Amino acid sequence: MNPFESGQNHPGVEPRLHAIIPAGGAGTRLWPLSRAGQPKFLLDLVGDGHSLLASTILRLAPISASITVVTGQAHASAVRDQIQDLNRRNLLDPNLDVRVMAEPSPRDSMPAIGLAAAWIRQHYGEDAIVGSFAADHAIGGADAFRDVISQAIEAAQLGFLTTIGVLPASASTAFGYIQPEEKFVSPGARLVRRFVEKPPSRIAEEYVAAGYLWNAGMFVVGAGTMLSHLRELHPKMESALGELAQLWGQDTTAPKIDELWNRLPRIAIDHALAEPVAAAGGVAVVETPSSVQWSDVGDFASLADVLVDDPAEGRPKSAEQQASTRGRDPLAVRLESPGAVIFDQVGKVIAVVGVPGAVVVETPDALLVTRLERNQQVKEVVETLRALDRDDVL
Amino acid sequence: MNPFESGQNHPGVEPRLHAIIPAGGAGTRLWPLSRAGQPKFLLDLVGDGHSLLASTILRLAPISASITVVTGQAHASAVRDQIQDLNRRNLLDPNLDVRVMAEPSPRDSMPAIGLAAAWIRQHYGEDAIVGSFAADHAIGGADAFRDVISQAIEAAQLGFLTTIGVLPASASTAFGYIQPEEKFVSPGARLVRRFVEKPPSRIAEEYVAAGYLWNAGMFVVGAGTMLSHLRELHPKMESALGELAQLWGQDTTAPKIDELWNRLPRIAIDHALAEPVAAAGGVAVVETPSSVQWSDVGDFASLADVLVDDPAEGRPKSAEQQASTRGRDPLAVRLESPGAVIFDQVGKVIAVVGVPGAVVVETPDALLVTRLERNQQVKEVVETLRALDRDDVL
Repeated sequence: MNPFESGQNHPGVEPRLHAIIPAGGAGTRLWPLSRAGQPKFLLDLVGDGHSLLASTILRLAPISASITVVTGQAHASAVRDQIQDLNRRNLLDPNLDVRVMAEPSPRDSMPAIGLAAAWIRQHYGEDAIVGSFAADHAIGGADAFRDVISQAIEAAQLGFLTTIGVLPASASTAFGYIQPEEKFVSPGARLVRRFVEKPPSRIAEEYVAAGYLWNAGMFVVGAGTMLSHLRELHPKMESALGELAQLWGQDTTAPKIDELWNRLPRIAIDHALAEPVAAAGGVAVVETPSSVQWSDVGDFASLADVLVDDPAEGRPKSAEQQASTRGRDPLAVRLESPGAVIFDQVGKVIAVVGVPGAVVVETPDALLVTRLERNQQVKEVVETLRALDRDDVL
Repeated sequence: MNPFESGQNHPGVEPRLHAIIPAGGAGTRLWPLSRAGQPKFLLDLVGDGHSLLASTILRLAPISASITVVTGQAHASAVRDQIQDLNRRNLLDPNLDVRVMAEPSPRDSMPAIGLAAAWIRQHYGEDAIVGSFAADHAIGGADAFRDVISQAIEAAQLGFLTTIGVLPASASTAFGYIQPEEKFVSPGARLVRRFVEKPPSRIAEEYVAAGYLWNAGMFVVGAGTMLSHLRELHPKMESALGELAQLWGQDTTAPKIDELWNRLPRIAIDHALAEPVAAAGGVAVVETPSSVQWSDVGDFASLADVLVDDPAEGRPKSAEQQASTRGRDPLAVRLESPGAVIFDQVGKVIAVVGVPGAVVVETPDALLVTRLERNQQVKEVVETLRALDRDDVL
């Protein structure tokens, strides 16, 4: 009997979480490392030997009863390959159920997470706790992070849609913020007053001074709680997701699936659920301690912060770079270019002279030259290339 | 009968000059385009379909009775190949004598030019006018330039060591300067008071305001005049060069050649001849008109100024680049990077974002990223790589 279908936990592991990992988004600000066909979550950007997705799975596995990766059809087989690879290397408990759900079309995070939650509810019951985590973030301090999740699970068991708020490392304008109340609803979780959008710089400073937290898009909630909120706020979507989950358990190739799915609205879980539920007093937040280092690895500046340095080479090196430069001696010469970051998948000699904070990304078919402070504009390169019909390098 | 050995001019052409082209110097500030094995003068840097050396030969050919390229033994066969290629393409008068002399070791410009002059004196007589021109400069306005040479020949026939002074385009600190007297010694040539070294910036401005000219290292002089100055100033060298020229005409493999040559001092013609002869009132200068655009193509900034733009591509493209990207569509995306210069021998997509004045040089085995204002430091890259024993990319 397949334990995943039985709904039973495995003895001795006490996993309480059903993890959902929506894996979408190309990461255009990391072009040309990330591509449409090789999106950010499939890459070992950090240099620890695992893709961001694989690291996310490994981080959640010890406290999870199941892991569901929801991804686009274009990437489903690559995702399956990475999971198989983790199993082959004995990095996952063979009893852990890891499932890949391939969306017929991108519908943003609410339908993706909602589908997985509906499926989990059907198989594990109303009280199963689901937790959704982005596939392409990097988190240091995995043990402390799992403690945070345990606290979030406690709040979720009290009926709260529980988010994890990241202690701000700076007054970043790249993230939305969460305003917590003073009031604790459980030992680790406070009530959330509201979510706010990415602020301008001066407002961000006020937020940080006032104790707001970064919204990292992580939610822990009972499957039944989530779907009953959804039933109230988006009844058609909830009913379609229930039907889809039913079909998925029987015949994932049913034509009805595409029909139902493609009629779903494109909407993020933040707007669909978190914001309205917070307004009604139904959202709690657990704050990460400073021992948890979270990064969205959203651009080359944040990637540079989390890179695993290779001191022998004197420059950051990821496992992918190692693989691609095997048998050659990669070498970078930096002159008067403090903070320059060099990514080389080719293994050629790279010299940077007089460009402080340079970002140089060398891949077999594309080269990017920019500066850390300007690297948010990299997505414009992708837009330009798309306008020029250069899909071959996107 | 070989007309080269007869000393006769060819009917109808009236060439009066015996051109000498010392071809040495790797051009380390143009790394990684220029390499030890592919020095600057062998490359088509400008994008007009010819190497700088070939362009120099073609520029001088219409007014020359002979052309002598003096180069290192390492490059002699590449130089011969380029000359053969010009002949094969019918770009040279088949009666023009073009000769390659391979120095046993580098001895700077005086021995190189002196050897060629001694050889020319032996074969064409005391009164033959020799003119020496660098192999790796770019000159726009070839007709006007040849007019300048004709004026220099007139002054040389009056017994002057005649230099060609370039009308300064800016108060550059990269060149030495020539201070002319008011006095004309012939319709086109004035007496030279002195040569001055590369000045600091403020001094350079004073020089330009006072009518000083750039010293581009071009000299036109009677072979007998040059060698009699040399006999007076460096008698041992003059006698050794006479002996070498004799041997060269008979047996270029004689062991005596190496012995004589390797004993010669390393000295530039400027110090050996031009400065002392100017002090004695024996140097004249012809000034280039504004229709002559001279560049030493000494670094990427000056290269960027002389590049032949390909308007279809929207970026500079040299014939070498064309060749190397044949069959592919080279494409550069520049965002907020005014003045960025991109050299691509590989044909990949190159994007430069937010780096004004960027210099990006992509070759099959090396990548350079710098800025125009810092590109003088490129030679430090070469020094660093040499210290790291990376001769494979030098």
